[in-house]
Amino acid sequence: MRLRPHKDHEQSHATDVGTNRLEAFSDGIFAIAITLLALNLQVPILTTITPQALTMALGAKWPTYLTFMFSFVTVLIAWVYHHRLLQWAKHAETLLLFANGMLLLFISAIPFPTALLGAYLTTSAASVASAIYAGYIGILNFTYNLLWWVVVRQHRRDHPSSRRLPTSMILSFLGFPCYLIAFLMAFWSPAAALVICSILWIIWTVKAPDMDVVPPKGV
Amino acid sequence: MRLRPHKDHEQSHATDVGTNRLEAFSDGIFAIAITLLALNLQVPILTTITPQALTMALGAKWPTYLTFMFSFVTVLIAWVYHHRLLQWAKHAETLLLFANGMLLLFISAIPFPTALLGAYLTTSAASVASAIYAGYIGILNFTYNLLWWVVVRQHRRDHPSSRRLPTSMILSFLGFPCYLIAFLMAFWSPAAALVICSILWIIWTVKAPDMDVVPPKGV
Amino acid sequence: MRLRPHKDHEQSHATDVGTNRLEAFSDGIFAIAITLLALNLQVPILTTITPQALTMALGAKWPTYLTFMFSFVTVLIAWVYHHRLLQWAKHAETLLLFANGMLLLFISAIPFPTALLGAYLTTSAASVASAIYAGYIGILNFTYNLLWWVVVRQHRRDHPSSRRLPTSMILSFLGFPCYLIAFLMAFWSPAAALVICSILWIIWTVKAPDMDVVPPKGV
Amino acid sequence: MRLRPHKDHEQSHATDVGTNRLEAFSDGIFAIAITLLALNLQVPILTTITPQALTMALGAKWPTYLTFMFSFVTVLIAWVYHHRLLQWAKHAETLLLFANGMLLLFISAIPFPTALLGAYLTTSAASVASAIYAGYIGILNFTYNLLWWVVVRQHRRDHPSSRRLPTSMILSFLGFPCYLIAFLMAFWSPAAALVICSILWIIWTVKAPDMDVVPPKGV
Repeated sequence: MRLRPHKDHEQSHATDVGTNRLEAFSDGIFAIAITLLALNLQVPILTTITPQALTMALGAKWPTYLTFMFSFVTVLIAWVYHHRLLQWAKHAETLLLFANGMLLLFISAIPFPTALLGAYLTTSAASVASAIYAGYIGILNFTYNLLWWVVVRQHRRDHPSSRRLPTSMILSFLGFPCYLIAFLMAFWSPAAALVICSILWIIWTVKAPDMDVVPPKGV
Repeated sequence: MRLRPHKDHEQSHATDVGTNRLEAFSDGIFAIAITLLALNLQVPILTTITPQALTMALGAKWPTYLTFMFSFVTVLIAWVYHHRLLQWAKHAETLLLFANGMLLLFISAIPFPTALLGAYLTTSAASVASAIYAGYIGILNFTYNLLWWVVVRQHRRDHPSSRRLPTSMILSFLGFPCYLIAFLMAFWSPAAALVICSILWIIWTVKAPDMDVVPPKGV
Repeated sequence: MRLRPHKDHEQSHATDVGTNRLEAFSDGIFAIAITLLALNLQVPILTTITPQALTMALGAKWPTYLTFMFSFVTVLIAWVYHHRLLQWAKHAETLLLFANGMLLLFISAIPFPTALLGAYLTTSAASVASAIYAGYIGILNFTYNLLWWVVVRQHRRDHPSSRRLPTSMILSFLGFPCYLIAFLMAFWSPAAALVICSILWIIWTVKAPDMDVVPPKGV
Repeated sequence: MRLRPHKDHEQSHATDVGTNRLEAFSDGIFAIAITLLALNLQVPILTTITPQALTMALGAKWPTYLTFMFSFVTVLIAWVYHHRLLQWAKHAETLLLFANGMLLLFISAIPFPTALLGAYLTTSAASVASAIYAGYIGILNFTYNLLWWVVVRQHRRDHPSSRRLPTSMILSFLGFPCYLIAFLMAFWSPAAALVICSILWIIWTVKAPDMDVVPPKGV
């Protein structure tokens, strides 16, 4: 709800509860989506059961393990950054709820492109599968940037003198052009597309400590 | 539990915890149901693997993507409105727990009519699938209205002078007759049924900012 | 952790956090188990697709819908009563964590006997399926009673003069012999077993308002 | 975020919220992973349906039930100990978020080695399946130890005079060499590997009450 400054205590309490429920709901979807990724890991069914056959059948499924870890780290970084982002948001207003909902739509469906990439990474259709994967995470990044825009707009309404953009917002805007390049490169080399995604992770992970600051009051 | 006014501090603390757990449990089910929708998105299995074959097989699954997004937005709007509704509820009394449980029953099973519609939307059985879908969301809306009735009853018990109904309650009561019409029209045109559902969304999304007000004490 | 009375504020704060996490974790498992029940609702696959064939195929699945609702209400009532139970528990001590874990084990696996009953209710193996179902819920009730014992023991340690048992504990102890009778009757009549389970629900739902009281300090 | 001591109240409030969200997110993943274990319990499909055939088919699935309970208890103990661990952590700094994320990666995928062991425990490939299972839980234990290292490092930064290590950390470090032995013994005897894992549980469960103490300020 829209917070009116200097209102009575009961109202501001209700506001806090609102933001808490938004966080809890988002955390729930992040947690479920990240855990459902593991459903893509399937036990192999063998015609002749020997220790060697099981070892080989499990080994042959390496693209499934790789894409599982890939998407797990993606959702984890997205959660860490979302965690920082919502520290800037103070009011669970309707626009924020819907912008956040858009982001959650793409978080919740992430097991699908992950399973697709896992199934086709070692086939001749790897280009399409990895282009869809990179494009999908690109759109996810876009919805995240949209959410930043809503939060910064809210923050500036409360602190009109504030001009500085959060570091993590600038870092996030870096993502979209990179994912676009990854999407295009996927048709030429699927591995190159995944390498670009990995470099983005490393940047975001290394730069994450820079965000270890709560927005000061006068920003 | 039933809150007795003017009781000691420990009791009212326990009451707050109760309402918090109700919210957390509901948020959990909303979050899981919305995320399980994505399990309907299945990786196509190809007999001949080529980039073109994969692209076409993925494209042919558009009803699955459409219904996924449809149900995602439905559950998201239901969550936003549920979020507002529970701000009016102050005591986690047993009647509220069970009325809320009824709503959660229909939220939790929403992946089923969604998968049904996704599977049969482009077949000759589309009429039955879309009638069931519209009818299902109509019943969901009915349980939501029931919950409003319990909450308003509770609110009036605490504030006997209050006569004004919450805007979002009136908006919600609009849903049931519309879904009934959608249910009946589905037998004539499945698309028309889905259009009616979409119009309801737009109304509810546009009107949602009107609810950005916490119920004032004397309402 | 074991609360030592009259300790400093930081410690008692940590204790509260502990109980909150126990509640949150339990609510999470209740919410996920109740939502996973809906995965048993499967879209029928038709050889000849007509509106009539789809309607009939959906209608033939009535045992699946019945058992879904049956288990949903069971878990919902279990959650409502668990909610009351944890209001009596003040310290997240290790014994409580493991007793609660036992209960959660049987809550989390409830989709399995539910699916079993849904698959075999209309077959000649209905007796075995419903006996397992009734027996399973009986064991679930037993773990719940065990948890009550731990909580009452904790409560009496804090309030040595307290002798009165909570009403919901007595109601819960009613469950085990009834489920045992239901288990035995299942071999003679599966329907009779389910009727006994339903009567228990009605008693627990009707009696639930009696629990709308927080334990007074001197109980 | 990095807590600077003696900062204003708003900042420390934001810090608490950060730790709460970390706990909520972790609890969510623990709760979902533990509940998804139950998806491995599948209803048997019979060619000839009789009560005897159903009883026998269900009985033949005992490795599935055993491994379900095995992994459930593993995740439950991991959650109880994680619960204690996070009571030592006071700041949701980025390093902690990622170390915790590593642990959650292995928690979320635990249904996979569980299903593997359930499927192959009674076959000639039991050695490979149980070696993978023991090795997997060994790596899980390793990530948990890593998290302890981060938390203790954080704790010592805040309390430079503190030298005593938490009991549960020492108990946890016991796990890795035991799981390594279990991994190696699995190739000789799968049962022996599982017995070693069980002994660890009993030690951790019996020793858990020793941790029922919040870290005192000056530790």
